[in-house]
Amino acid sequence: MLLIKGGTIVTAERSMRGDVLCDDEGRIAATGPDLEQPTDCTLVDATGLLVMPGGIDPHTHMEMPFMGTTASDDFYTGTAAGLAGGTTSIIDFVIPAAGQRLFEAWQDWRCKAEKATADYGFHVAVTHWDEQVHEDMGRLVQEGGVNSFKHFMAYKNALMIDDTVFLRSMSRAGALGALCTVHAENGDAVSFLQAQLLAAGETGPHAHPLSRPAEVEGEAAQRAIALATLQNTPLYIVHVSTREATEAIAAARLKGMKVYGEVLPQHLVFDESVYHKEDWLSAARHVMSPPFRARSHQQALWGGLVSGQLQTTATDHCCFCRDQKGRGRDDFTKIPNGVPGIEERMSVLWHHGVVSGRLTPEQFVAITSTNTARIFNIFPRKGCIAPGADADLVLWDPTASRTLSAATLHQNVDYTLYEGMTLTGVARKTISQGEVVWDDGTLRAVRGKGRYVPRPAFSAAQAF
Amino acid sequence: MLLIKGGTIVTAERSMRGDVLCDDEGRIAATGPDLEQPTDCTLVDATGLLVMPGGIDPHTHMEMPFMGTTASDDFYTGTAAGLAGGTTSIIDFVIPAAGQRLFEAWQDWRCKAEKATADYGFHVAVTHWDEQVHEDMGRLVQEGGVNSFKHFMAYKNALMIDDTVFLRSMSRAGALGALCTVHAENGDAVSFLQAQLLAAGETGPHAHPLSRPAEVEGEAAQRAIALATLQNTPLYIVHVSTREATEAIAAARLKGMKVYGEVLPQHLVFDESVYHKEDWLSAARHVMSPPFRARSHQQALWGGLVSGQLQTTATDHCCFCRDQKGRGRDDFTKIPNGVPGIEERMSVLWHHGVVSGRLTPEQFVAITSTNTARIFNIFPRKGCIAPGADADLVLWDPTASRTLSAATLHQNVDYTLYEGMTLTGVARKTISQGEVVWDDGTLRAVRGKGRYVPRPAFSAAQAF
Amino acid sequence: MLLIKGGTIVTAERSMRGDVLCDDEGRIAATGPDLEQPTDCTLVDATGLLVMPGGIDPHTHMEMPFMGTTASDDFYTGTAAGLAGGTTSIIDFVIPAAGQRLFEAWQDWRCKAEKATADYGFHVAVTHWDEQVHEDMGRLVQEGGVNSFKHFMAYKNALMIDDTVFLRSMSRAGALGALCTVHAENGDAVSFLQAQLLAAGETGPHAHPLSRPAEVEGEAAQRAIALATLQNTPLYIVHVSTREATEAIAAARLKGMKVYGEVLPQHLVFDESVYHKEDWLSAARHVMSPPFRARSHQQALWGGLVSGQLQTTATDHCCFCRDQKGRGRDDFTKIPNGVPGIEERMSVLWHHGVVSGRLTPEQFVAITSTNTARIFNIFPRKGCIAPGADADLVLWDPTASRTLSAATLHQNVDYTLYEGMTLTGVARKTISQGEVVWDDGTLRAVRGKGRYVPRPAFSAAQAF
Amino acid sequence: MLLIKGGTIVTAERSMRGDVLCDDEGRIAATGPDLEQPTDCTLVDATGLLVMPGGIDPHTHMEMPFMGTTASDDFYTGTAAGLAGGTTSIIDFVIPAAGQRLFEAWQDWRCKAEKATADYGFHVAVTHWDEQVHEDMGRLVQEGGVNSFKHFMAYKNALMIDDTVFLRSMSRAGALGALCTVHAENGDAVSFLQAQLLAAGETGPHAHPLSRPAEVEGEAAQRAIALATLQNTPLYIVHVSTREATEAIAAARLKGMKVYGEVLPQHLVFDESVYHKEDWLSAARHVMSPPFRARSHQQALWGGLVSGQLQTTATDHCCFCRDQKGRGRDDFTKIPNGVPGIEERMSVLWHHGVVSGRLTPEQFVAITSTNTARIFNIFPRKGCIAPGADADLVLWDPTASRTLSAATLHQNVDYTLYEGMTLTGVARKTISQGEVVWDDGTLRAVRGKGRYVPRPAFSAAQAF
Repeated sequence: MLLIKGGTIVTAERSMRGDVLCDDEGRIAATGPDLEQPTDCTLVDATGLLVMPGGIDPHTHMEMPFMGTTASDDFYTGTAAGLAGGTTSIIDFVIPAAGQRLFEAWQDWRCKAEKATADYGFHVAVTHWDEQVHEDMGRLVQEGGVNSFKHFMAYKNALMIDDTVFLRSMSRAGALGALCTVHAENGDAVSFLQAQLLAAGETGPHAHPLSRPAEVEGEAAQRAIALATLQNTPLYIVHVSTREATEAIAAARLKGMKVYGEVLPQHLVFDESVYHKEDWLSAARHVMSPPFRARSHQQALWGGLVSGQLQTTATDHCCFCRDQKGRGRDDFTKIPNGVPGIEERMSVLWHHGVVSGRLTPEQFVAITSTNTARIFNIFPRKGCIAPGADADLVLWDPTASRTLSAATLHQNVDYTLYEGMTLTGVARKTISQGEVVWDDGTLRAVRGKGRYVPRPAFSAAQAF
Repeated sequence: MLLIKGGTIVTAERSMRGDVLCDDEGRIAATGPDLEQPTDCTLVDATGLLVMPGGIDPHTHMEMPFMGTTASDDFYTGTAAGLAGGTTSIIDFVIPAAGQRLFEAWQDWRCKAEKATADYGFHVAVTHWDEQVHEDMGRLVQEGGVNSFKHFMAYKNALMIDDTVFLRSMSRAGALGALCTVHAENGDAVSFLQAQLLAAGETGPHAHPLSRPAEVEGEAAQRAIALATLQNTPLYIVHVSTREATEAIAAARLKGMKVYGEVLPQHLVFDESVYHKEDWLSAARHVMSPPFRARSHQQALWGGLVSGQLQTTATDHCCFCRDQKGRGRDDFTKIPNGVPGIEERMSVLWHHGVVSGRLTPEQFVAITSTNTARIFNIFPRKGCIAPGADADLVLWDPTASRTLSAATLHQNVDYTLYEGMTLTGVARKTISQGEVVWDDGTLRAVRGKGRYVPRPAFSAAQAF
Repeated sequence: MLLIKGGTIVTAERSMRGDVLCDDEGRIAATGPDLEQPTDCTLVDATGLLVMPGGIDPHTHMEMPFMGTTASDDFYTGTAAGLAGGTTSIIDFVIPAAGQRLFEAWQDWRCKAEKATADYGFHVAVTHWDEQVHEDMGRLVQEGGVNSFKHFMAYKNALMIDDTVFLRSMSRAGALGALCTVHAENGDAVSFLQAQLLAAGETGPHAHPLSRPAEVEGEAAQRAIALATLQNTPLYIVHVSTREATEAIAAARLKGMKVYGEVLPQHLVFDESVYHKEDWLSAARHVMSPPFRARSHQQALWGGLVSGQLQTTATDHCCFCRDQKGRGRDDFTKIPNGVPGIEERMSVLWHHGVVSGRLTPEQFVAITSTNTARIFNIFPRKGCIAPGADADLVLWDPTASRTLSAATLHQNVDYTLYEGMTLTGVARKTISQGEVVWDDGTLRAVRGKGRYVPRPAFSAAQAF
Repeated sequence: MLLIKGGTIVTAERSMRGDVLCDDEGRIAATGPDLEQPTDCTLVDATGLLVMPGGIDPHTHMEMPFMGTTASDDFYTGTAAGLAGGTTSIIDFVIPAAGQRLFEAWQDWRCKAEKATADYGFHVAVTHWDEQVHEDMGRLVQEGGVNSFKHFMAYKNALMIDDTVFLRSMSRAGALGALCTVHAENGDAVSFLQAQLLAAGETGPHAHPLSRPAEVEGEAAQRAIALATLQNTPLYIVHVSTREATEAIAAARLKGMKVYGEVLPQHLVFDESVYHKEDWLSAARHVMSPPFRARSHQQALWGGLVSGQLQTTATDHCCFCRDQKGRGRDDFTKIPNGVPGIEERMSVLWHHGVVSGRLTPEQFVAITSTNTARIFNIFPRKGCIAPGADADLVLWDPTASRTLSAATLHQNVDYTLYEGMTLTGVARKTISQGEVVWDDGTLRAVRGKGRYVPRPAFSAAQAF
């Protein structure tokens, strides 16, 4: 048992002085002011700290095979790094190989993820359509604890689906009580622009954003929303990075549609100038999709988060080391797309969101944890500080500062986007399943301790 | 003491089976599953019922002197009717008489409200500007527990202020940590159109909506938002009834501004056809401002509520009986503006919002109580079910139906807009200050039991 | 030679009293007040009439093979009917058969069109992509007098192209100085909805609009505009029928993009209720794509025309007789899509546009003739009343009325959408190539007299 | 008589090689290719030049008493400078003194303007309301040749009117067939912000734009449009300088409303950085209202002009010399608002509009002359090259360049905003009333030669 004493409990709803008692099953047993310390109970002093639900990162790609290589953070190292940053669970992605059945791919990913040290779940990607996909979607929802399916409108000739497949999947997911998520970029356009740029001799990282301009995302977001409207199904748009997509989401919501948007902290901090760094590797390390944008888009993303029109934050954590990035030295389209971030996310958002005055601490909890738990139907098990909820917590020091460096971070990758940045807001302790796993600099991650968190289907009547 | 047992607690955040224990000071002592019944504790069986925070109606006008007469529901009868409908507190309006100091007017209203049976607070109207207004705003915030000031852009030559006064008040309120609220209709335009209509011989209630078309509200909402932008102060727009105003609010919020919108249930249910009833009185009984609109506006209001761009619901409860309405028989501009509704609000919103599938029960709590408590800074005392909160609760039967009729309602007025409508969703019991005051048809309202609820200023740092 | 005397010349720019002298080559020789009558010159009395440029219909499908049958109006009967309605030239569509080269298809259509009695040109459809298409586009522009290519985002598995083909064609057209035109409906979505409806047993014409809701057009219009933005090429959207597409066009134009929109008069007049006619054939006769819409869309289309955000009007004239429509009696997706209209267009637009007060006579000329001539680069040969321009004119009686009936119209089809409607505004005389071919009820159309009107490429520098 | 030979005639509609013959009454007698030279006719060689309608500047303030001083260019010097720049007529403003009758003020201005060398007309400002205003508006329209009235929503305690006066004037103007024009800035807000800034010790020109942010204009534009909607009267918004106002105009037009917007070239070229010049006088010389804006607004203005949503260009020419500007050295609110520009307008627009590829030469003619003539109902007398039109022409060298300098310009003021800028596009010759008055550097302006151009009321039926 663990008693967290003297802190300020912060939920999406309110902040209050209070203690939290965690039982031996890894759940919260009680909350309240001045809880008595049971015998055999470890005391954790939270004086001066905020006790918040551990972060949930609903968008990671641990050890993902992608673009001819494999993301360097595996489920153990990646989730461990998350704990060091205050994130206590993830939702990763099952990406079936060409021709592979969804259910089988999900089983493969279940195996890979057994080494995780923190709790996890999976979105399953629908990358083609046939009767088996239809069948496996049902099995995954009904037996597999999967309630969300991912769709790629980008990555032509690889993961990309056409609108017909998307509509079929939406229709099926709607019937099953599952949520469609989407990477919204027009893959035909990206592929066309890549070819144009390469033909014009533009092979460096600076061409990456030119091949994926804001219109390419805005178009796809509007299209995905239009298709969802036709089937009256909810929709979750991952890594929203443009004003165009933000406005499309807000407009749809104002019509009463259930459309959700996810923001990555890196899109709030970096702009397209990163692709013009003189050093090839520095630029290439920023190659991810969608790319970093002009500053005006950042204002829109903040507006979306502050007003509640964009609901969640994630990282799209997908690490590639120097040699891996180097695969694209002569051709920017071959640079593995992806950046690290699971360990930095909470600090970046606290610093730029809360310290800057844009967000309240309650909103911070909402966008890093609670909203995500709600949307993916694991609330109140996750994202909640109340008796019965999982004892996944972070003890946050709202005023401490630290300077980020790959040298001291725990991600299994040789850089951080935030190298040298000093941020206010630090995870002092992280508690996972009722145990202190990150203790002010000491990481006590146990390989394989993470659990698969099944996510139930939404009931027909439920608005989520 | 009171133990509410066996119900489902519904808050803005979640629903869960649980009991609620109320102490003798009228506060919630504990919540949780299977609470033990203390000795000397009354048991209330909530089996099959939802236990929700009592409604807060932030827009009522009890016994208001207006248009040459006085609203017929006084603070006692009006708050009692609220209890019968599940509403346990109100925020009414102090309207200074011409030349009267704000503080003095607030004292007058404090006296009037002593007869209230439920808790109450006041917005104070700023209807002119001078050094005394500046001074009294400070005193009201610092000594009077007032954190919101009301502004009328309508009612020319009566309550209406010009943009200069509005800006001065915004600037002052911002410095004090108070919130500006606004009735957004262009009073010059209304007055001009009224004169045009009367000159054209249009004297009946059908001319009322013609004198206040949607543009008149949309324009004023945009103007109020623009002015608030200049001073970077938050803004609360009362009784939003148009698509134009809804879209203006949503657009401002997407820029990161703190703009809030309030919806009246009657605007969600009735359209402009009510002014064409053959019977003069029936039409006149619907005369309020802003008027009922074309149906397309209702879709926008629902979209605003569902998406979180409009946050609260209220009634603008302001009752006038047959004879009072009759003052405008020959001139629609003399019909006292106002309709009853505090007793019907919760049922109307449950029926049209939750039963229809638009809103979840949690959203219902948010828009009838919690959001209001947050915005007016009385959360978690109000709008919350947690230890320490006021024991203001409603035990809601989500499936029972009843047919509304003035004959059986408790408002001190001779009609209801909803006469003959059958609605699903009924307040079985209402608990105020820890006591059952509405018990399945029996009203136990005690004159003078209501308390003034001071609302503290917002701290400079606080985003609300 | 022909001297048109005593009329009011109306151009897109102005109206003025004046005569028009046509020479023997079919061109306008002079205009001005009180022109002298040369010897050997026929006099045409235009007293009380408006002398306007003959209509140009840039969207017709004469004798088109489509959906297993062939449109019943051929180039002779169709252009003759046009003359009877005041339309003196058309731009039809070359639709290559599967696997057919574009240039060869264009040659086929040139042959078919030799029977035309009025002037004509062709848009050529790009329905797939390969090296030959690239080559033929060049040849058509440089040798064939074609400056516009058509793209179908609808008609999956038939004419529909994907975004990659569209981008390739845009890029090629841009380099050639040609204009891309597009049928903007999401074909995947239509096909999916059709299958859903049929599976649900909805086989009648009422299902037609349900299979092509407004979102399907709005989405495609936005996508087409986004793609054009990427290549910075102009875009012409045919048969705009929705508020969504209109707003997308207006927004793009306000960013400085060259995007044009075409309106069909039938979309301004009829709404979706036509698909609920009890008589199957009556409903089926309205089956065209995009379908007729809710009335609110009509307001947007009028707003677009009045404000100049939509520039042209056309008919999509594509006639199918009773037996042809009957092919879809058991399956609405098999009803040949298309309606007649070339003969009615001018009257319908005058009546509903000018007589109603929405448009000036000058705007009428602009949207029926001059704007089209400009956009397709045949101005000032067409769409202009000035020396040197083709003597294609209509002498318009602005106040005469007539009742439309298939019995008295000249289109080779057994119905008119406007049966029984009385419209004000009648073509008294139509002059083609300087000769009176429609003379107050007498049609003097000569088979084969129409000429192919080559349309030059746009110069790189030219904004059009 | 004058024969302009060998040039390219450019109208708003088209460009064509052609000659122009001007008669001795100052009107165009004929146009066409290869006109014969009558005897006693001066030949003007236009080889290589564009022959365009002379510019119309519908927004000038010659010798206006304003802010305690009088604008330095009088009707003679100002119109002469216009001729040197290719502008052949102006519409200036009658501003009644406090308490002065409109008709009397108009008579005063008629006297002042007798010295003008080019044609002119007047908008008359409505700055208050009473029965005499009502009466004088009628007399001015019916007897005075005035068809437009100006309204100031800014300049509180001076020219500013409230919404009631504006509505009364709109209603009266609508009945008379006159057009309301408006300076759209919220004067209450400006005044409030000015006081705030001065109180904060911000007294320099840098505070000028802070006192009139974009919202202040956007709000007023939306309000003016809303009021015009209520009375269904057309509206002309002068000096549109913001994205907000542009979008408001475009949105209203898309609803079918007749709303027009005017752009000043200086707003297309300069941004707010001009107020941060170190030299006080340099900054002060840019003080005008509305002020220069952030660059993003310029994109919106160009989009508006290119798409036809903004129709005209003007200068708000209002000159103040060094000493006059100096009146505000200690208080930016006392710096006389105004800048010169009538002489530079055409070159600035040609260079930045046509040479840059944004506008065609035809669009240039439309926005500098023809659209203005249409909107103010002096077309085809002005803005037109056709027999009967006034022979007001400019012979434009589209490729010549010159460097602007106050030293060589003719305006009676000691600076130009464009000092040192090299612009392509030069007025070689200007023809006014059929005579060459500007001849490649030689100005032959004759004092008093300008004529008052009466502008008839719009007929009820006329859409304009």
